This record gives sequence, structure tokens and C-alpha cells, in this order.
Amino acid sequence: MLTPMDGNGRPEFKQLEKWVDVLIAQGVDGLYLLGSTGQGFLLSEADRNKVTEITADVNAGRVPIIVQVGSMTTQESVRLAKHAAQCKVDGISSVAPVYYGPTDGSSGMALAHYGAIASATDLPFFPYQLGATSFSDGLGGFINKLLKMPNMAGMKLTTNNLLEISTISYSSKGELVLFSGADELMCHAVLCGTNGAIGSYYNVFEPECKHVREAFVKGDVALATDFMLVFQEVIAETLPNIWTFFRQAIQMRYGVDIGGSIAPVGNTNKVWEDKKIEELIDRVVKAAKIGG
Amino acid sequence: MLTPMDGNGRPEFKQLEKWVDVLIAQGVDGLYLLGSTGQGFLLSEADRNKVTEITADVNAGRVPIIVQVGSMTTQESVRLAKHAAQCKVDGISSVAPVYYGPTDGSSGMALAHYGAIASATDLPFFPYQLGATSFSDGLGGFINKLLKMPNMAGMKLTTNNLLEISTISYSSKGELVLFSGADELMCHAVLCGTNGAIGSYYNVFEPECKHVREAFVKGDVALATDFMLVFQEVIAETLPNIWTFFRQAIQMRYGVDIGGSIAPVGNTNKVWEDKKIEELIDRVVKAAKIGG
Amino acid sequence: MLTPMDGNGRPEFKQLEKWVDVLIAQGVDGLYLLGSTGQGFLLSEADRNKVTEITADVNAGRVPIIVQVGSMTTQESVRLAKHAAQCKVDGISSVAPVYYGPTDGSSGMALAHYGAIASATDLPFFPYQLGATSFSDGLGGFINKLLKMPNMAGMKLTTNNLLEISTISYSSKGELVLFSGADELMCHAVLCGTNGAIGSYYNVFEPECKHVREAFVKGDVALATDFMLVFQEVIAETLPNIWTFFRQAIQMRYGVDIGGSIAPVGNTNKVWEDKKIEELIDRVVKAAKIGG
Amino acid sequence: MLTPMDGNGRPEFKQLEKWVDVLIAQGVDGLYLLGSTGQGFLLSEADRNKVTEITADVNAGRVPIIVQVGSMTTQESVRLAKHAAQCKVDGISSVAPVYYGPTDGSSGMALAHYGAIASATDLPFFPYQLGATSFSDGLGGFINKLLKMPNMAGMKLTTNNLLEISTISYSSKGELVLFSGADELMCHAVLCGTNGAIGSYYNVFEPECKHVREAFVKGDVALATDFMLVFQEVIAETLPNIWTFFRQAIQMRYGVDIGGSIAPVGNTNKVWEDKKIEELIDRVVKAAKIGG
Repeated sequence: MLTPMDGNGRPEFKQLEKWVDVLIAQGVDGLYLLGSTGQGFLLSEADRNKVTEITADVNAGRVPIIVQVGSMTTQESVRLAKHAAQCKVDGISSVAPVYYGPTDGSSGMALAHYGAIASATDLPFFPYQLGATSFSDGLGGFINKLLKMPNMAGMKLTTNNLLEISTISYSSKGELVLFSGADELMCHAVLCGTNGAIGSYYNVFEPECKHVREAFVKGDVALATDFMLVFQEVIAETLPNIWTFFRQAIQMRYGVDIGGSIAPVGNTNKVWEDKKIEELIDRVVKAAKIGG
Repeated sequence: MLTPMDGNGRPEFKQLEKWVDVLIAQGVDGLYLLGSTGQGFLLSEADRNKVTEITADVNAGRVPIIVQVGSMTTQESVRLAKHAAQCKVDGISSVAPVYYGPTDGSSGMALAHYGAIASATDLPFFPYQLGATSFSDGLGGFINKLLKMPNMAGMKLTTNNLLEISTISYSSKGELVLFSGADELMCHAVLCGTNGAIGSYYNVFEPECKHVREAFVKGDVALATDFMLVFQEVIAETLPNIWTFFRQAIQMRYGVDIGGSIAPVGNTNKVWEDKKIEELIDRVVKAAKIGG
Repeated sequence: MLTPMDGNGRPEFKQLEKWVDVLIAQGVDGLYLLGSTGQGFLLSEADRNKVTEITADVNAGRVPIIVQVGSMTTQESVRLAKHAAQCKVDGISSVAPVYYGPTDGSSGMALAHYGAIASATDLPFFPYQLGATSFSDGLGGFINKLLKMPNMAGMKLTTNNLLEISTISYSSKGELVLFSGADELMCHAVLCGTNGAIGSYYNVFEPECKHVREAFVKGDVALATDFMLVFQEVIAETLPNIWTFFRQAIQMRYGVDIGGSIAPVGNTNKVWEDKKIEELIDRVVKAAKIGG
Repeated sequence: MLTPMDGNGRPEFKQLEKWVDVLIAQGVDGLYLLGSTGQGFLLSEADRNKVTEITADVNAGRVPIIVQVGSMTTQESVRLAKHAAQCKVDGISSVAPVYYGPTDGSSGMALAHYGAIASATDLPFFPYQLGATSFSDGLGGFINKLLKMPNMAGMKLTTNNLLEISTISYSSKGELVLFSGADELMCHAVLCGTNGAIGSYYNVFEPECKHVREAFVKGDVALATDFMLVFQEVIAETLPNIWTFFRQAIQMRYGVDIGGSIAPVGNTNKVWEDKKIEELIDRVVKAAKIGG
């Protein structure tokens, strides 16, 4: 979920309330707060907490909420997790340690970081897979260690490497709920055993993506193939100016202003022509063939 | 298609004849000769030609044949292509230039190489995608240049990068027949618009892979998901000793001896226990649920 | 410069004062504050400001000070820069944007970020080179754009890629003061035209590294070769437990307690045996042959 | 050493004789035959043997000769090595296995390949380091295994990764003669303990490179710094059209025609203007300050 911003590096809480309602009305199965798309890392701890509180309040139990609490320090992540546990949310998630790569060339740093967060609350925990990290005992060995942590519930897999997803899938033997994070491989990831998808483009195209993913799971491979190629082309076209695309497309489609991204994020993004935004939305909507 | 070898770095022509018959009996839709799996690069030009001749003769038009003619020099590739055109084969293919990377940081070297091969005969031509090469005008621009070559018929896409496959797919707008080359993403690649699959594990598991791929195209997403996870696990397990696995599994399953690989290929491969080979074959066969 | 920490994620200001005095006594040519080694990113803005203030006060103009102000947001970096300008420091520096990679595949995001920081004060500015970023008009083109920014004084080059350093060197035609950041290639980088070295191991081995670098510049290639091989071996050996190595070695050598690193940084580091620390220090000290 | 070619994919033996004499007259310390620069991989086995024979004959013991025997198959490499042993040459060398990456994710494939070549003759053997290969027991462990092979004399290190060179250097504890292969880091590599340099640009700039390298070893760090920056800039400028640069520069400077490269190598290289070639040569010659 994108976090509406006020142009001064802080959340816009009025738009946030409206935005949560709009997303739920669009049929989202849940809300994932303050990840990369939500620019969680760019907000102060107090603002992150406030976003969680307001979203939980507005949601009022309608859909499950997962809060991303990954942060520069383990200590702050633990505090964010504990705060989340006091709100009406359903799970916490965390990205891998930011900036400081594992100097020991292994996944130990992330394991210790995740362990502290997992133990901080009783909420189900959904850590990220680790990008280019090497694993002293293989990715399967890493998954085994994760499975021993308290409250381990699943993972968010923001990678285009489908073999990595498959390996996590068959190594966890059904004990983890897996969310794919690469929108452009949403259906492909189903074949790797993922149970759901969390991504940024669903902020704009929730009805279409949900429809196609469900149709695919039920067997409509042709629709999925046709849709994904169109969706991938639109993603490739919008990626260089993704933040202005999101803002303008959401404004146009849902009448919510999510504001500008917090610099340096999106600081080279150009404003799109309205006609182009319309055309891009249209292409994806048509490709989804809702209503047949 | 694996090429039966005689242990002295040359093809074993008697086993080759038998092997072609066995593969056709297993229901292959076509034969792809002398690629990486077929160790084409390790054979002399004369032996490569002989393998093509014998395969074409034994096949006698039963299934289409594509011959891989990629080689160290453009000149040899052109000669191999011309020879193939004199046999009863249906297409030629070529890997990207071997060893010498493009010093100009672009795809120009491969384009010139492919162009010479494409023009050498009237056979449909199926070049490989280019691994890590950067494209001065994007991958889409490269595809446009390929499309202008004579006899351009399609591509062999031996990559795990599905977004690259999708980009080639939507950039070629239906004008290229695309074969996915990563066995472990056989079904996933269908969602990227590929029309077929060429890979090494089909030498052992042709009936199973064909069955699952066809069932998936018709809508059996559940079977594809379950099968692919098992298949991927077996691939991961066999990969470190893939050449001995292929040899022993084909011996066990089909009674053909494809011989040892040509060193240095497979020179650290260990011999498998028969029971293990049996178990691995069994897992894949069961996962394919042929007959329901 | 390492920042002494208190074990609760905050700086230890008493040890900081002592540490600044020790470093100056060891003969450092300058102090570089709050970079990766100084764990600047893990501290609150207020604590970063306080570290700058105290260091500037204790230093009292004895050696030049550069403050690293890179941060998650451009806004915070600008505030940190403005605060630094009010202290008695001599330059500011900034890492590239953290976490959010340039989605436009170019260096535009970093340029806009650097531009805002460079313009925020009148202090000389020393940005970092950009890791794996691609440059639409080459690295030379990027350097040309940097050179047009106000207050551009030089760069900190924390990379093992010496060709990148050389390219920056000959592209900037003497207009930038270049600091190499990879301790293990300290002397090699001199050959790429770097003017100085900023790195973490100099916290422990300032006298040795300074001696060898100066001797090398004066022509002692044999000493540099012998020393660097020993130094590189010690770096490779200590890297997996670098934070405990720094803490224990500085305690042993200089009697200052820099405290533990802030988790997740160093969270898998093991405590070293004192004898081992002694031996490692000894190897480097001997290899430097101070006094001949 | 570049191999003069005849435009039809074969060596030009008359020019080869002349070329060997010219190189020796330029003061080379030795000749390295049929590597990547010499396009050894693109020649037939018979032609490779003939190149070795003629070079050995013309040289007549004046300088040491190393023959690169790496090839697609271990068997051919062994035959090339045995043939070399019958000529008057002083060592053999081999690149790592070409094309087929180590499927076992380790360096075992290369070790077995190197072992067979090393044992084939009594000549000193100089294998290449292995590019991106991972080492089950570290690079140091790999070096230990190499050291146990018969006739192991040294290594050719064609990498820009200086830390890898240093690691090989301190791991082999003086038991290997190390040649750096990246011309653009010729002097930098001296600091990693290399004993000599083998590279392609020395075909054109032997007197200059030899002079600067020797001056650097004796302590002229300033000359080395200035020269290397100029040399690196010229290398960067000529690299996209390196084969035509070599041909035209050697023609201009030494009156030898090395012919065109064998396609696909250099198939996009553009012809240089003579004035530009002259200017490039001039820049390097001046930077070397031979005669002070």
C-alpha cells in the first residue's frame, strides 16, 4: 500500500483515511503497510506508528493488515513491532538489514535481526527473502533455521528469481504462507507455490490483478498469458517514472491524492500527460477482460 | 537431444540410431541436435555433420529437426549450416558467439554472427537470446534488428530470466516462434508467450514433461504447480552430477547407452546408486500423474 | 572514524572525546565522521549532530574534518549539512541514495540528491562514487555533471574497482580531490591518481598505513608490496568479525572503548582471543617497518 | 602475442616469422602464444601446432616461449601440450574450461582439466585463475590443490580483481610465478606480488610498458601514476575497436601486417583514421618518457 504524503516528508493523514477505504472498496484481500512502496524507511518512527494506528482504525477489522517494521536498526524494528502489536493488525513483516551487507558472507546477520523482531511480539511474522546473500548451508538450510523462530508465519518474496521462490516453497514444505512481491511475475509465481501477491502496482490495478490471478488459479492460462504480457509491457513503460505514474493514475482512477514521493525517491520522475495515463490504465483494464 | 558418445571424444553412431528411435517413440515433437546438451561444441566439424546426417536418416521425416550450428568461428558455423541444409532437417539454430565477449559492449558482434548464419541457407533460423549482453537500443531494439534478417523464424531462450523472455515475446509481436530452454521453468515460460520447450531433462522425462505442459496449457494449474516443484527439486538434486544422471537414467529407463561426457564436461560427476536413480525417476513420473 | 557507542544504540560522548584526541595523536591527517564505519546511518539526527559538535570542539582546528551527511531522505541530509556548516568543520560528504535504487536505470537520482546537498552550504562537498549504477552518458559524463555543481571539491571512492577510480581521475582532470576508500588497495589506488585514503582499518593502524603510503609515494615499492600483502591477509582474516576486532584492537592498542556496534551491524561477530588480536596487530606493525 | 592471420581463418606464416623477429627486437622478455589475443581457440589444432613450431624455430632460444593449450576438450589440450613439448618451448599455459561452466558450483571441473594438462608433459605449467567460480574451500584452498599438481610453475591472472591476485599471491607463498593479464593494471598488479605481465597491448607498446614497469619497480611511482592514467584512457578509447587498432598500429609502427581477426571476433570493428592511430601511439609513447 502506498502511503499518501504531504510534500514535506510526512504522511497526509486525511488522504490516508480515504485511501484505506478506497482500497478496501476495490476488493483488496489485505493491506501491507510501510514497505518500500509505502516509503516506510523514509518516515520517522512516530509517523510510521501513526500510519499504522490510523490504517488499523479505518480498517476496523475489515481486511487483514501486515505492518512492515524493517528499519536501519534492530532496536527500532523491535519498537515498531511492539507498537504494531498494540494496534489492531494481523501480522508484521521486515525487509533484510538495510545498507550494511553481511560482512561474514552469510545469512547470519539477517537471521539474528529477524529473530529479534519475531520474538518481540506474538504476531505472525513474515520476513523477506535475502537478495544476493550466500548461504553457508544453502537456501534450504536457511529456511530450516527460519522455521525454528517463534511466530514464523510466511515470507514476502520480492524477487524475480523464480527458482529461489520455488526452493523456498519446497524447502518449507507447506509451513510458510508465501507472498510473491514481483508484480510482473504475479501468475508465474503461483506455479512456484506462492499463496498470494503483495506489490505496488496493485495500488492502481487491484481489480484487474485480482481477477486475473483468480482466473489463472482456476485454469484460465490463456487469459493469464495475454494479460501478463500487457501488464509487463505497461510496467516496463512506467517504471522509469513510477512515482508520478502512481500519483496521477490513482488521482484519475480513484480521486485520492497520494502526494509526491519523498526525495531522493522519485526525484527524477517526470509528470505524465493525462491522456497517456488514461491509455495505460485502459490497456491493463481491457487485458483483464473482467466480465468476459 | 543428448549425443551418445564413445568414450574417446567421438559420437557412438550405433547408439545414436537407437536413441533417435527411442526419443521419437517417447513422443517428442521434434529433435534439437548438437546444442550444449548434445556437446556439439566438443565434436569435430566432420563428426557434427555425421550426427546430423544419421539423425536425419533415422528420423526419415517423422519429426522436425533443428540443428545447432554455433561454433567458435562464423566460418565454421556457416559451413555447418550449409551442410545441414543438404540433409533432411527443418531448421538451424545457433548459440551466441562463444568465449569472445562483445568488446564493444553491445550486441553488434552477435548480430553480425547471426546474420552470416541466417543468410547461409534457406532454412528457418532460431538464434539464442544473448546472456548478459547490454543492448545499445534496448532488448526490443535488438529484436527489431533480428526480425529484419532473412529466414528468422524464432529463438531458443535458455535463460531463467522470465522478464527477458516476456520482453522478447511482446517485442516480436507474434512473428517469432519461441522455445524456452530452462527446463525448471517450463510451465512458467508458457505465461511469457513461449510456444515450445527445448531442454536437456526432456531426454529422460519426455512423456512426463509433455503431459504436464499440455495439461497446463489446457488449464491444469494445480498439476503444473505440484509437478514443477517436484521437478525443480529433482533438477537441483541432480545438477551437480547431471551427466552421470542422464547416462544412468537413460540406460535404466530406455536401455540406450549415451556414454560418458567429453572431458572437461562432467569430469567431476560421480556415479549414482541405481536405487537413487530409480527413486528420482519415480518421483518425477508420479508427480506427472499420467492417467490421472 | 569509528564512533564510540554506548551499547544502547547511542554514541558514548566521553569516549568520543578521548578517541578524537587519540586519533590526532596518532598522526591522522584528518577526520571523516559518521560514514559506514562510524555507523552514522544508525543514529538519530540529533545524535549525529552531537557527534559532529563534540568532535569539532575537541579537535579545535587541529586537523580537517569531513562530515558524512548521507541519509535516507534528501531533506535530512540537507539539515545535517546545514548543521555541520555551523560547526567548525571543513567539508561534507554523502553516500549515494540508500535503499531505493535508481528506478530509471541511470544516475539521475543520485545527481539530484547530491545537488541538493552540495547547494545547502558553502562547505566543500565530497560525494561517493555510485556502485553498480549505469550511466546514460558514461562515467565520464557523470563526472562532468558533478563538476558543474556548486562546492564540488572531490570524491570518496569506496570501491575495489580500480579502473572506475582511474576513469574518475582522468575524467576530472585534476579538479577533484580523490580519496580511496578500500583500505586493502590503499597503495594501488595511488597509481589511479588518488590524493588520500579514508578507511576503517586506519582506526587501528593509522601510524603503519600512513608510513607505508608515504614511503610508497616516495618510491618504496618493495615495502608497499610486502606490507599490502600482509595487510590484505589481515583484513581478509578479520573481516568476518570486524566490529569485535576493531573494538578489542582499539582497546588493547589505545585504551579507548568504542563499544559494541549497533545491531543488526556486527550481530554475528565473535569475541576474539586477546592473543590473536595481539598477533594480528603485531603482523601489521612489523610489516610496516617503521624505523626501518 | 597476436597471431598474424590470412583473412581466411588461418595463420599467415610469413608475417608470423617477421612478427616474432620484430617483437624480440622490441625487447620482449618472452612470448606467450595462442591465448585469447592470439585467437588460439579459433584455429584448427594443426594450425595451432604450426604456429608453435614456426615461432620456436624463428625464436631459436632467444626468449622463453609459453604456449597456451586451452581448448574445448581436455583431450585436445593434452595433445596440444604434448606437441608443444616436442618443440623448443619453455612452458605451457591453459585457460579454464571454455563454455561449459562448472555445474557442480565449484572449481573441481577446472582442477581435473588442469591436472590432465599439467601431467601430460614435463614443461612448467601456468594455468589461468578462474573467473567467477566459487571455491568450496576458498581461493586459498584451490591454490593449495594447484600446488600439488606436477609441473605447476605459476599462473596467468587475467582479471581486474586485484584482491583475487593478492590472495593467490599470499596463498602460494612464493611458490608460483605470477603474470598479470590486465594491461590497464600492469603496475598496480606489481603491488599484489606479480612477477611479470602478459597482455595484448604490449604487442603495440612493448618498449613503453617495459620501461615504465621497470621504472616503477625501481621506485618511480610518479611516472607509473602518470603513465597508467594515459595508458588506461587509451585502452578505454581503443577497446571498442581493438582488433583494427592493433592491426593498424602494428602496421604503422612495425610494418608487419597481422591481418584481420577471425569472425565473429572483431566483426563490428571500424577502421581507424591513420591520424588517430598516430595520435594514440604518440600519447602512450610520450607518457612513457623513455630517455627522461
